[in-house]
Amino acid sequence: MNDVAARAQVSLKTVSRVVNGDAGVVEGTRRRVLDAISQLGFRRNDSARQLRIGRAAEIGLLVEDVGDPFYSTVTRAVERVAAANDCLLFTGSCDDDPERERKLALALCARRVDGLLIVPASADHAYLASELDSGLPVVFIDRPPVNLDTDAVLADNVGGARSAVAHLIAAGHRRIGFVGDDPDIYTARRRLLGFRQEMAAHGLDVDEAWIAVGEPGAGRLRRHAERLRDKLEQLLDGPAAVTALFTGNNRITTQVLRELALRDADAGAVLPRPALVGFDDFEFADLVTPGVTVVAQDPAALGRTAAALLFERLAGLTEPARQVVLPTRLVVRGSGELPPPA
Amino acid sequence: MNDVAARAQVSLKTVSRVVNGDAGVVEGTRRRVLDAISQLGFRRNDSARQLRIGRAAEIGLLVEDVGDPFYSTVTRAVERVAAANDCLLFTGSCDDDPERERKLALALCARRVDGLLIVPASADHAYLASELDSGLPVVFIDRPPVNLDTDAVLADNVGGARSAVAHLIAAGHRRIGFVGDDPDIYTARRRLLGFRQEMAAHGLDVDEAWIAVGEPGAGRLRRHAERLRDKLEQLLDGPAAVTALFTGNNRITTQVLRELALRDADAGAVLPRPALVGFDDFEFADLVTPGVTVVAQDPAALGRTAAALLFERLAGLTEPARQVVLPTRLVVRGSGELPPPA
Repeated sequence: MNDVAARAQVSLKTVSRVVNGDAGVVEGTRRRVLDAISQLGFRRNDSARQLRIGRAAEIGLLVEDVGDPFYSTVTRAVERVAAANDCLLFTGSCDDDPERERKLALALCARRVDGLLIVPASADHAYLASELDSGLPVVFIDRPPVNLDTDAVLADNVGGARSAVAHLIAAGHRRIGFVGDDPDIYTARRRLLGFRQEMAAHGLDVDEAWIAVGEPGAGRLRRHAERLRDKLEQLLDGPAAVTALFTGNNRITTQVLRELALRDADAGAVLPRPALVGFDDFEFADLVTPGVTVVAQDPAALGRTAAALLFERLAGLTEPARQVVLPTRLVVRGSGELPPPA
Repeated sequence: MNDVAARAQVSLKTVSRVVNGDAGVVEGTRRRVLDAISQLGFRRNDSARQLRIGRAAEIGLLVEDVGDPFYSTVTRAVERVAAANDCLLFTGSCDDDPERERKLALALCARRVDGLLIVPASADHAYLASELDSGLPVVFIDRPPVNLDTDAVLADNVGGARSAVAHLIAAGHRRIGFVGDDPDIYTARRRLLGFRQEMAAHGLDVDEAWIAVGEPGAGRLRRHAERLRDKLEQLLDGPAAVTALFTGNNRITTQVLRELALRDADAGAVLPRPALVGFDDFEFADLVTPGVTVVAQDPAALGRTAAALLFERLAGLTEPARQVVLPTRLVVRGSGELPPPA
């Protein structure tokens, strides 16, 4: 409101009268205020509502699955920033279903939320363009927007994957398998890219049989888990067996650990473990044996940073779309330091 | 709306005209409709709003901490029911701060949400009485309402705790420690009660030195964790040492496992473990050594059931407040079957 008043060179009261559609504002002044509003991307409708009923601000957060510790930590961090701003929070899980993302996002826009934070499931976000034009601030988390020019906060997926692979190579491994999520998903694709880049940087050829990734579509994690046993058998006992594994996210790391435990149970003995580095830290990484070496990203920082960017926009910041990339951190616990069999 | 129309013996159209304050409804009819509305606890304002702008329904969910796997699972289950009802969901974490619960709940009421699901932090919910009177359906989860007559969905905390203690006694233990949360919290209090009841049922005296519970207040879990090392030392090595532990929730079980691992690390050897049964299942319970025997409650069923009760109320159900108690399940994995030292 202050920015609008300043730019239109009128009083706040005049702005609010224009916004409320009050009569008795001369046309030239009304025009100046509306021009200032459109130049500043000010949300006329919401502001009008706020001026009328003084409701608290509301923002929406869409994630893949709030039941996943990664996303529940993101959600918790966003909640803290929202609470600090006396702002209410809508949340929803998209299950990597583009239609569900679109439906939820547009339902929140229809509710006239003041801003949106989105971990996108879809590969085209043009459907939000008109909302952006009308002044709705939107910040993407974990995955960047496609066909939409807006803020995003991402992790350094390529760099993190490269540090994981470099760590395994430093431990003496040359045959390294990648077990990852569906490469249609941005983060999975970037981590696979980092895997390939680091192998190439060390002059190591990648046998495509070493790469086990999930297929697209809903329920893909369940299907991935179902096929993991066979994939691991190929990776660990097949003709092109590897001596180390790089797992692409916390859920896949957990699935692999469970399968390795089942192999031990079937064998009635603790079989020699492949070296393992996982992308994403998780609560029990230090309590299993051996402790799991991970490339930790900081989901709380992802949520916190994205929410902070959103509230800067809500405060009237109008600079061009920003992309923030947060670093990852290698946490050494034992599984990533196992040497290859002599 | 249908209930109101039926009770007032008028058409739906007449109800909506009265609700919308349209002129041209004879006074006697208007009175009948309004009486029916107040008798049925129908929410006049919201319904008016819904009829006017046809907005989607919105409900609010307050939990202790959405970052905790237990509550993120509850949240996920509520989300699914809300989505199936084309209903948007507000969420918030109270951190067991009664003031924060009150502030969030009343902010959601001011937003005119259609219903509330609450895992309460406070010990007095009379502040919601007027909202209830005005027809807002409220369902409590995990902990019952106090000074408020409304639906609640709880776990069988006493029965679950008794089954855990009975299992340890069956393994030969007589000296059993209880490591639990602040007994000011309903679930913690009930689980301690179940511990005492089952010990008494077996004619076993409880040495109060065997009971290590947290203190009240914000940050209590962190403080509990900080003091846990000393408490465990007393419980396991003190003059009144126990041979088995019953831990009161998933977070405390995790803290105890971490402390036991640190004891091993300090000793440079795997020390003999006390038998352990934890209340609440958790993802890695089968991946640590030994596997952790737990009394599993079903957080998804808690959220699903509570949301279903709420939507029954939103559909017009007017029967008296209901309390649903969900059973627990003992899951045997190894830690709870360790015998006492010979």
